[in-house]
Amino acid sequence: MPTFEPKTPDYAQRVRASFAKQTALTSIGAELAAIEPGEVRISLPRSERVLQQHGFVHAGIITAIVDSACGYAALTLMPEGTGVLSVEFKVNLLAPARGETFVAIGRVVRPGRTITICTGTVEADDGGRVREVALMQATMMGLADKPGVAD
Amino acid sequence: MPTFEPKTPDYAQRVRASFAKQTALTSIGAELAAIEPGEVRISLPRSERVLQQHGFVHAGIITAIVDSACGYAALTLMPEGTGVLSVEFKVNLLAPARGETFVAIGRVVRPGRTITICTGTVEADDGGRVREVALMQATMMGLADKPGVAD
Amino acid sequence: MPTFEPKTPDYAQRVRASFAKQTALTSIGAELAAIEPGEVRISLPRSERVLQQHGFVHAGIITAIVDSACGYAALTLMPEGTGVLSVEFKVNLLAPARGETFVAIGRVVRPGRTITICTGTVEADDGGRVREVALMQATMMGLADKPGVAD
Amino acid sequence: MPTFEPKTPDYAQRVRASFAKQTALTSIGAELAAIEPGEVRISLPRSERVLQQHGFVHAGIITAIVDSACGYAALTLMPEGTGVLSVEFKVNLLAPARGETFVAIGRVVRPGRTITICTGTVEADDGGRVREVALMQATMMGLADKPGVAD
Repeated sequence: MPTFEPKTPDYAQRVRASFAKQTALTSIGAELAAIEPGEVRISLPRSERVLQQHGFVHAGIITAIVDSACGYAALTLMPEGTGVLSVEFKVNLLAPARGETFVAIGRVVRPGRTITICTGTVEADDGGRVREVALMQATMMGLADKPGVAD
Repeated sequence: MPTFEPKTPDYAQRVRASFAKQTALTSIGAELAAIEPGEVRISLPRSERVLQQHGFVHAGIITAIVDSACGYAALTLMPEGTGVLSVEFKVNLLAPARGETFVAIGRVVRPGRTITICTGTVEADDGGRVREVALMQATMMGLADKPGVAD
Repeated sequence: MPTFEPKTPDYAQRVRASFAKQTALTSIGAELAAIEPGEVRISLPRSERVLQQHGFVHAGIITAIVDSACGYAALTLMPEGTGVLSVEFKVNLLAPARGETFVAIGRVVRPGRTITICTGTVEADDGGRVREVALMQATMMGLADKPGVAD
Repeated sequence: MPTFEPKTPDYAQRVRASFAKQTALTSIGAELAAIEPGEVRISLPRSERVLQQHGFVHAGIITAIVDSACGYAALTLMPEGTGVLSVEFKVNLLAPARGETFVAIGRVVRPGRTITICTGTVEADDGGRVREVALMQATMMGLADKPGVAD
C-alpha cells in the first residue's frame, strides 16, 4: 500500500462534515469507521430497510457505502476548497451480502489533480466469519474552487 | 430496439412478487412503473432519506433502482424456475441527480442462457425538464433450478 | 440519437491526421470508415495477426478499435487545441468475434468540457450475417491547451 | 494475497499451449513471463507496431495483454476440460504507456465454478523507473466440457 500525504490538516473533519449531510447513508445507519489519508472505511449494520428479495443487503446499498468510501478516500487528498465527484464506478458482486455488519473500504490507487482512481471492497461479518462481498474500481474527479459542489 | 419473447406468461407477476420483497427499494418509495419483455422501469420520488451531501439523490440509490430495473428486465426473459443475479455493473454519472422524480429504465441487450447483458439509464424530471443522469452497463446471470435464490 | 454541433470545421481532418499516426491500428489494417459530429466508425478486416487461440479476433483488438472510435467521436466535439484521452472503459463481449470484417462505432452520449461519456459497439460481418460482438461504455477527458498530448 | 491450488498438474502447460495460438499477442512480441496458480504475467516490448498517436503503447494493446493475463490466471484454477472466456472487463488508464517494456499481471480474486473475478495491472519500465499504467477488473467465465472453445 502506498502512503499518502494529506494536503490539508483538517481532512478528517471535512469528511465527517460532509458525511453527516448524506441522508442516504445516515438514514440506514451507516457510520464513518476510519479516516486515513487515502483510505476511508464506512460501516453499515444489517437492518430491515436495506434488503433485497432474499434478505441479503441490496447491491445498490452495498454500492452506496463503497462509492462513498472511495469518494471520501479521494477527498482526504484534495487541497482546500476542492471537492470530489464520482465520475463512474464498476462493482463486481463477489458473494451474497449476508451478515450482521458490513464494512466498505475505499482506497486511493492513483491521486491526481483532475482524476483520482480508487479501489474499494465491502467485507461482510456473518457471525464472525468475514468475507469480501463486493469489489469496486472507481474514477473520481476533483472540482477545484467549487467547495460547495462536491466536498 | 429488439423485441423479445417472454418464456413464461406470468413474467410481470414474477417481477412484482420479487419487487415487493425488496425493502431497500420499497422503504424509499420506489415503484415498478412498467414491465415489458426485456424492459422494466422503476420510479423513485425524491425524499429526505435518499440524498447525498448537496441535496441530490445519492449515486448508490440511483444505482439501486437502475440495477434492479436491469435485473428485472433480464428476469422477464428467463424460463420458469430460473432467477437472476447481478454479476457486475458499471455506472457513469452523467449529471447531478436533481429533480422531483427519477425513472430507471433497464433493457436487455443480449439475452443468454447463462449470461444476459443489459443497459440502463436513469432519467430525472426536474420541474418538467427531463434529463439523463446515469448510464449503466450490466452483466446478469440466470440461475436455473434455483428459483429461491434470485427470482 | 442526439445530434451534435462540431466546435471546429476541420473536425474530420483532425481525426484523420491523428488516426494515421496510430501504428497499433494501421499495422493491423484498421481504417476510418465514417466521421460525423459525435460518431466515428473504424473498420477492421480479419487477418492472421489479430486472432486469439480459437481463431476469433482478440478481445484486446476489438477493444482497440472501439476505444479509438469512442475517443475520436469525443474529439469531433472538442474545440481547437483540445485533445482527448481515454480515462477508462468497460467492455462486454457479447459473442465470439467471428467474421471477415468488423466495424466499431463510437458515439458521444454526453459531451462535456472536462469529461465526455461515450458508448460503442463492434459489429461483425460473418458471411453477410451482421452481429454485435462487443459493447463499450467509456469515459473520455478533454485536455485543453495541450494539443500535442492527445489529439 | 490468497494462495490457490491448481485443479490440474499441467496448468502451466495448458496456458503455454493456448498462448502460442494467440497471434494477436505473438505477432507483437508478447511473451508469457510467469505462470503461478491464480497469477499470470505477460510481458511486451515496445515496438513500432503497437503505438497510438503520441508514441505511447495503445490502450487496446495494453488491454490485450492484461485481459489475457487475467484470463490465463483464471485458467490455472480450472479443472481438466474447462476453458475460460472473458465476459467483460473495465480498464482504468492511470498514466501514458511510456517505456521500453510492459508487464501485465493478472490475478484471481474470487474463483468460482461459473464466474471467476480477476484484477490486473500493467507496469511500464521506462529506463528503470517502473510505473503502473493500467488497472483492470474483469469477469471470466469457465466453460465446462468445452475444452475446444476457450482453453
